[in-house]
Formats: sequence, C-alpha cells, structure tokens
Amino acid sequence: MKNAIGRDIPAHISGINNIRLYEGAGVYKPEKSGAGKKLRVGKPHTNKILQSIDEAIEKTGLKDGQTISFHHHLRNGDYVMKMVVERIAAKGIKNITIAASSLSPCHDFLIDYIKDGTVTALESSGLRGQLGKYLTRHPEALQKPTIIRSHGGRARAIEAGELHIDVAFMAAPTCDRQGNATGRIGKSAFGSMGYAMIDAAYADNVVLITDNLVDEPVHPYSIPQTQVDYIVPVEEIGDPAGIASGAIRITKSPTQLLIAKYAAEVMEKTGILKEGFSMQLGSGGASLAAAKFIREKMEAQNITGSFGIGGVTGIFSEMLKDGLFKACYDAQTFDTTAVQSLAENPNHIEISASFYANPWNAGPIVNDLDVVILSATEVDLDFNVNVITDSNGVCMGASGGHSDTAAGAALTIIVMPLIRGRLPMIRDHVQNVVTPGNDVDVIITERGIAINPKRTDLIEKLSNSGLPIMKIEKLQQMAYDFVGKPDEVQLSDADKDIVAVVEYRDGSILDVIRKPLV
Amino acid sequence: MKNAIGRDIPAHISGINNIRLYEGAGVYKPEKSGAGKKLRVGKPHTNKILQSIDEAIEKTGLKDGQTISFHHHLRNGDYVMKMVVERIAAKGIKNITIAASSLSPCHDFLIDYIKDGTVTALESSGLRGQLGKYLTRHPEALQKPTIIRSHGGRARAIEAGELHIDVAFMAAPTCDRQGNATGRIGKSAFGSMGYAMIDAAYADNVVLITDNLVDEPVHPYSIPQTQVDYIVPVEEIGDPAGIASGAIRITKSPTQLLIAKYAAEVMEKTGILKEGFSMQLGSGGASLAAAKFIREKMEAQNITGSFGIGGVTGIFSEMLKDGLFKACYDAQTFDTTAVQSLAENPNHIEISASFYANPWNAGPIVNDLDVVILSATEVDLDFNVNVITDSNGVCMGASGGHSDTAAGAALTIIVMPLIRGRLPMIRDHVQNVVTPGNDVDVIITERGIAINPKRTDLIEKLSNSGLPIMKIEKLQQMAYDFVGKPDEVQLSDADKDIVAVVEYRDGSILDVIRKPLV
Repeated sequence: MKNAIGRDIPAHISGINNIRLYEGAGVYKPEKSGAGKKLRVGKPHTNKILQSIDEAIEKTGLKDGQTISFHHHLRNGDYVMKMVVERIAAKGIKNITIAASSLSPCHDFLIDYIKDGTVTALESSGLRGQLGKYLTRHPEALQKPTIIRSHGGRARAIEAGELHIDVAFMAAPTCDRQGNATGRIGKSAFGSMGYAMIDAAYADNVVLITDNLVDEPVHPYSIPQTQVDYIVPVEEIGDPAGIASGAIRITKSPTQLLIAKYAAEVMEKTGILKEGFSMQLGSGGASLAAAKFIREKMEAQNITGSFGIGGVTGIFSEMLKDGLFKACYDAQTFDTTAVQSLAENPNHIEISASFYANPWNAGPIVNDLDVVILSATEVDLDFNVNVITDSNGVCMGASGGHSDTAAGAALTIIVMPLIRGRLPMIRDHVQNVVTPGNDVDVIITERGIAINPKRTDLIEKLSNSGLPIMKIEKLQQMAYDFVGKPDEVQLSDADKDIVAVVEYRDGSILDVIRKPLV
Repeated sequence: MKNAIGRDIPAHISGINNIRLYEGAGVYKPEKSGAGKKLRVGKPHTNKILQSIDEAIEKTGLKDGQTISFHHHLRNGDYVMKMVVERIAAKGIKNITIAASSLSPCHDFLIDYIKDGTVTALESSGLRGQLGKYLTRHPEALQKPTIIRSHGGRARAIEAGELHIDVAFMAAPTCDRQGNATGRIGKSAFGSMGYAMIDAAYADNVVLITDNLVDEPVHPYSIPQTQVDYIVPVEEIGDPAGIASGAIRITKSPTQLLIAKYAAEVMEKTGILKEGFSMQLGSGGASLAAAKFIREKMEAQNITGSFGIGGVTGIFSEMLKDGLFKACYDAQTFDTTAVQSLAENPNHIEISASFYANPWNAGPIVNDLDVVILSATEVDLDFNVNVITDSNGVCMGASGGHSDTAAGAALTIIVMPLIRGRLPMIRDHVQNVVTPGNDVDVIITERGIAINPKRTDLIEKLSNSGLPIMKIEKLQQMAYDFVGKPDEVQLSDADKDIVAVVEYRDGSILDVIRKPLV
C-alpha cells in the first residue's frame, strides 16, 4: 500500500496493530476518547519509599509481556534504565517492551538484554550508537519493528491509549517523600521533565528513582505526588558529564555559519522576523548558529520576540535573559546554562511533551510557532526529510520534535550542508521520511536555497532578495557536479527486514525503515 | 437501606444512577479506569477568540439535556454563570444540568431559570442563600435531587467519569490568546484556580471567559492552552467586592477565642504540634482563630511546620511569609492578602482540587495532614458532622473540603459553640451527615471537649491535661441543662421530598437531605 507521500507500507507488519496510512497533516480526526487513568485509592499517611528497585518491581507486579517506560532527560548520562533492566532480568521476567522517550549510546547495554529475551520490543524517538547499528543489522532480534515516534506523537499515543505503560520508571533529580519531583535541582539536575510528565500522568504504576530525596516540600514540581506510587532512593541516577553538556557554543564552521546567516536572512526577507514573532531552533550546529544572526537583526531593528520553544540551550536562554523574548517554553533542557536559567528565570517555562507538540489536544505550543529552523541528515526532491538513518541506512538519529514543529510552524526552514563526506545530501528519495515535504518550506545549504514550490508566497518574497534561490533539482545537480551521483543504498524489501516503523505524529504510518542489503 | 453509619438511603432515587452505599473511608476500591479526555485536533494558528457567549454556545454545540460547569473562585462576586445561563435561556435550550464547584447567594438568579425549565439539575458542593431556601422547600422544582460533593469528591467524580461535563465555562482573570490562564493577576484576580483545573482538564469543550485578555504569554498558568477551545472576552467577570474579602481578621468573640485556644492546646498536648507538622484550618471563626494560638506556641517552642493547606487566608499566608511553615498548598484563596501572597511568594503553591483531596489518585495532599481544625453546624453523639443545613433543616452551607481533610488528617478537630441562638449543637442524630464520625477525633466547645471513644490514644494523652475533657453525652447534657432539649425538626420521609443527595468523597451515598415538614 502507498500512503499520501507515496511510501510503500506493507498491509501487515508483524507486531504492529491497526495500521493506518499517513494521509497528510491534520487529516485524520480521532472520534474516540483518550485513555482513562488507572484509578487508585490513596491511603492516608502512606509511606511510598521503597528499599530497592527489586521491591519496586515486586510492588508494581511487573510481569512478562508488559511495557515499561523511561524518559531521556538524563540523555547519555542515564544510569536508571540499566539499573532497572538488570533487576528485571535477574528476576527472570521476559518479553518486556521498553517505551523510552528516546535512547542514547549509554543504552547500548540493551543489546545483551535483547539477546537474552528480557527485552523484545522498543518504542522510542530514535535509535543511536551500537544499539542502532545492531538493530539495523538484526531486526529479527526483536519480536517486532521498533516504533519511532516524534515527541508530540509519543505524548499523543500515551494520552490516546495507543501506548499503554504498565510501569513508568522515572528518574527524578529531586523529590520529596510524597513524590513531588523536579529536575531543576539536585546533583543530577537536568532541567525540564517535559517528557516524563506524560508517562507519570498515564502509567498504571509510577516509580520515581531519585538520588536526592528531601524532607521539605518540593516545588515547583514537574511530577505531582498524586501520580507517584513508589519512590526508590539510589546513590546516583546519572553521570553529570553525560546528562547536560557545558554551555553549548556557536559553531566556528564557516559553512554552518553561512547557512545560519542565510536562515536569518530568509526570516527577515519573508517578513517573519517582526515584533512579537516566535521561533524554535533545532539542536544542530547551523540551526543553533542562526541565533547569532537573528539576534543581531533583532537588536539592530529593536525587535522583541514573543516566545521561543526548546530543546533549550544556553544560547536561547541568554536571549531570554537579555529580553529579546518574553518567554521560553522548555520541554527539554540541553546544557548547564539552560538548566540554570530554568531554575532561576521565571520566564523560562517548563512544559510537558503534550503542551509542546501533541497534535490531539486543543493547541500545543508548536501550533503557534512562526518559524522553526531544523537540521536533516538528508532531504529529497519532494522536500521530505530524513533524520534517523545515515547515508548507509544505519539508524543513528531520532525523530524528536522535527515533524511536530514542521507541522506547527508557519515557516519551516531546513538547514544542512549540500555535501557531507563527499556525499550529496539531496536525494531523489530519502531512505525514510520523518517529516513530510508538505510541512517543509525552505531548504538552505551553503550553495543555494530551495523553496517548496507550493509556497508561491515565499518564492515571490525571496526571488529578488539577493539570496541564492534556486529549484531543488538545480541544487541537487550542483552537488552531483561536485561529487557525482552516489549509488543508492540497497534496502531489503522483505517484511521480516523492517527495522522500524516511523509513525507520523497522528499515529499513522509515515514510513518503514528497512535493513540495508550490504 | 441503611449505610455503614446507619443512615436510611432509598434503594432508588429518581435521577440518581448506580446508588452505592457508603461503606467507610477507603473501603470501596474502584476497578475501572478513569474518564478519557475528548481528543481534539489542534489546528495550527487557530484563533480561539470569540465575539460573544452566544457564539461560544453555538461553537460548542451545547444542547438540551447537557451538563455545563462553573468554578466558584469568584465566590459571591461571580458574574459569569448568570451571563452564560441568560444566553442559554435566550436560545431556548432547556434541561441543563449545572455542575458548579460551589454556589453562593449571587446565584439566587438560578431560581428563575429553574422555574422556566432551563436548568433542571444541580451538582454542587452546597446550596446557600435564597436558592438553598427555595430548593429546600421545593425539591420538585428540579428533576432530581441536587448532588452534593466534597471538593475532593467532585474532582474524583470528574476524573472517574461519573460527572461528565459537556461544556466548562471557566472565568479567567487573565489569559493569553492561546488560552493560558491564571487567577493571580487581573482586575478580577481571585488567586488559585484549583477547582477550575479539573473541569478544564476533562470537559468536552472548554470556554474561558475573561476580562483581561493579554498578548504576552501568561505564566505560570493554571489552565494550559492545550485544554482551551475558545476564549470570550467580556467587560467584567465579577464584582471585586464579592470575589475576595479584604484581609480576614481573627475573631474578637471571647467564646470563639476560648475554643481556638483549646484547639491549640489539644494539638500541643497530643504531640501533634512538633517540628515539621502540617495543618489545615477551616474558614470558620474559631478554626481561623486557632492560628493565633498555634503561632504563639510555635514561636515560643521554636517550631517550624512543614506545610499548610488551604482555603488560604491572609492569616496563614502571613505565617508562611514569616517562615513558620515551609510551604502552603492552595486550592482556593480567600482574601486579598492571600491573593497577593500567591502572586508573590514562591512557597505559596497553587494546587488543583485533585491534588488537594481526590481520594482516587496516588496521594492527595490531605493524606499527609497531621491536623485539621474544622467547623460544624451541628454534630451528634456518633461524632457525625453536618455543615449543610441549619437548625431548621434549610440548606445554607457547603460540604467543601470537610470530609476530605477529616479523612486525611491524623487528627481531626471540630470546633463549634455548644449552643447557638439558644439551640444545643450536639444532637442525638445530625439532620444529615457530611463527615462521618469515624473520621472525627475531637469536638471542642467553649464548655468542654469530647474525644471520639475509638481514639483511646488521645483519651490517654489528654486525660490529665487540665483540659475540660468529657464524654460527648455529658457535653450534650450540659447544653440541655442550659437551654433544654429542643424539638426535632420533622423531615418528610417521602422520596419525592429528597432535596439533595450527599455523596461521600468516594462517590458512595452518605446521606440524603430531606424537606422539613414545616
């Protein structure tokens, strides 16, 4: 079957129920109600503190075949998933689905527990590191393809009851004895708990794992005590070096700086860069670097923006501090400067993944975005974007908020080098689609800028702008002229070789990721 | 049928489905999941602002037989319910259920719309004013008895799907164009939006009605944009004089001061008044006055409490400001001093009604209370408490958080005068029960203190305390010795004369309120 962007989707995929093909942004209208929360009877003066993860596994009644969840706010410094999966394996519990908001190289240990049958399915924003390589080569190691969801799509899936979590094991940098938890403070502080909020609100059992249990009431809290069943104190929930990087700096790469400069000029010349505008910058080098040029223009023209959204870095939190924006909505805090900003600046607002990007509520904040600047691993002539697999077809990235912000923003800009490692980045067809071309407006490279033909308004505004505007086919040819047309990576078309299913944010199937043949 | 406290409950009550008898606190365990939220498709760059209440009624598709909800944070200054009900009536929509978190004398206008069939059912925390009198005398004016719920019970009923709201019309003192709303600021600021939060989270349609629509992002927000379908700007949502009183002062009544002093002494002598203790004070004169004596003892003994819960008054927010407590959880803000405290003091924490008192989540904050001091209109020999009807059997009060805090607190103290207007306040049986005697530990009057016989620990601690401890029967007799035994108000036993059904916080039927015969 072909979906609305012409991707071939098998009618049946082992382990994936209710396949619904992607029809376009906002086309499918859910008629059902969302998931109901499990009702509990909160007993007065209960002690929620447990002695060990083993005790938590026992009290929650976790058993074969259930789904457990983790958030990825500890990023590559996460100790919690390993702690928990080790104890589950030690108890001989098998056939567990891990629904993580994302996975990092620190989760490579999962390979061992996939091999021994403890873990038999994954749902995540992406696959990286050795785990990504392993599953790309051995999709049969899991009982079903990994389900890839955007951050908004995951919030939607949980709230709609499509992703049911039996036990959420949530790392908490600080919590009180009732379970009110925050990521703002504590030795493992990571900032916003935006992804964790949804798991805590909907899981049948919620276990907080903390290395800073305090007696005094914790507030503001990101997870309220009303959602917390148990608390397990441990020595350390993560490695600070892996949790948040030091202050992220603007790139020094001349290519990325040129691309970033173009992005700011596109914003200016399309009229988006005006009083009260809102924006999000992706975490790639060129998107972050755009902040430098946007800032210069805002200061020169005395423009104050309304709000920014993040994945927040110090680069943005400095703009907030300096009054260039009124507010910053934060579902995930990337560096130590931004973590401090969230703790100190009242205009730095922590939000849940649902507030950020869930397409099935009355209005996530991405819906109010004027502009988003995003990266890509490759794009194609239809403006489709891949951010999951590398040029060899190996899973190494994550969906994140890419398709969410692209769908919400009035102007979606993709920034990327035209050529990476002697490979052209504009393909006839991307290996797999994370963001449909319909939601992408402008692709900016160091050698030229392509505008989605459906955006005739932008073509008109930019045609005499002095910017190197050209058809995407011409931009592709320019790359070919430099490095030649590359061979296509050959992908298996066997259904058993489907590595992952890429859900669009509304739960429909946008694409499948297939195993490369070589 | 008789329930666990021996109250006679008809097996069938017209209009009340699924009658479940009260079995005791925490006995009934729900097996079902809660309500699922209605899923929406939030369209990017939608304009939520409507021109009028009429337009909101049309857009939400409100029709005959549906349920609409209101919060009572505007208290006796509320303009919003009248605005909305007038327009519903003008459109000829009939048979509406009004589910308000409470009702005040400013809602007496409802009598007209009950008479003309616009409104045919009420669900509320209580009934007051002319409306209370009218419905006590004319229960047949509605199609079914009014359902009385505690604040926690209402949150539970909504979250459990027992109270389904078609359209929530929520007054918002300030909101932005996306619908992020707060009660902290604006000309009609009332403080916490704790009751409104639950309606907004679960109603099929959410309409904000505001007299302060602002362009800049509103934060912290009590209601998030993700829950808001429409916004109607109006001139005024309420009368400031009725919304919040000026700073509430400690009573000067010697009787109430004596009762309050006893309450503080009971706390001290039972060992509750110690480092890190938590408390809630009801809004009656003697309970609020207890703060004065508790404060004196805390200062003298250098005790710092953990947290307080409110219904918050300036009396408590001053204690918070002065460092006597670490935090204050606020579901409802009573006076202007407390409104200012919520806006300015970061330790003054806004909470939802569910966080406050919903018995069916993983732990509302009432479950962590050491002590609560509450008022009563009358009590009985079984320690049952009535706070709804006056001595003539007329509805004039509200359930509020009475039974919620009594169930949660380790020590529940009832303060009340032994005699009011020459009537003794300790009855053989209260006219109706809002809080079961099982959850009541101590009853304090100006002439004596009765301890629930099941609390042998308290009897032991207080027996040689010098306080006037006595059996409740003796306290009752003391009142009779002064003013004689009063005649019982004769109540109709006809099922058609049931004015209201009092739900316990878990949704079971605790009692029914019957029409007085004279």
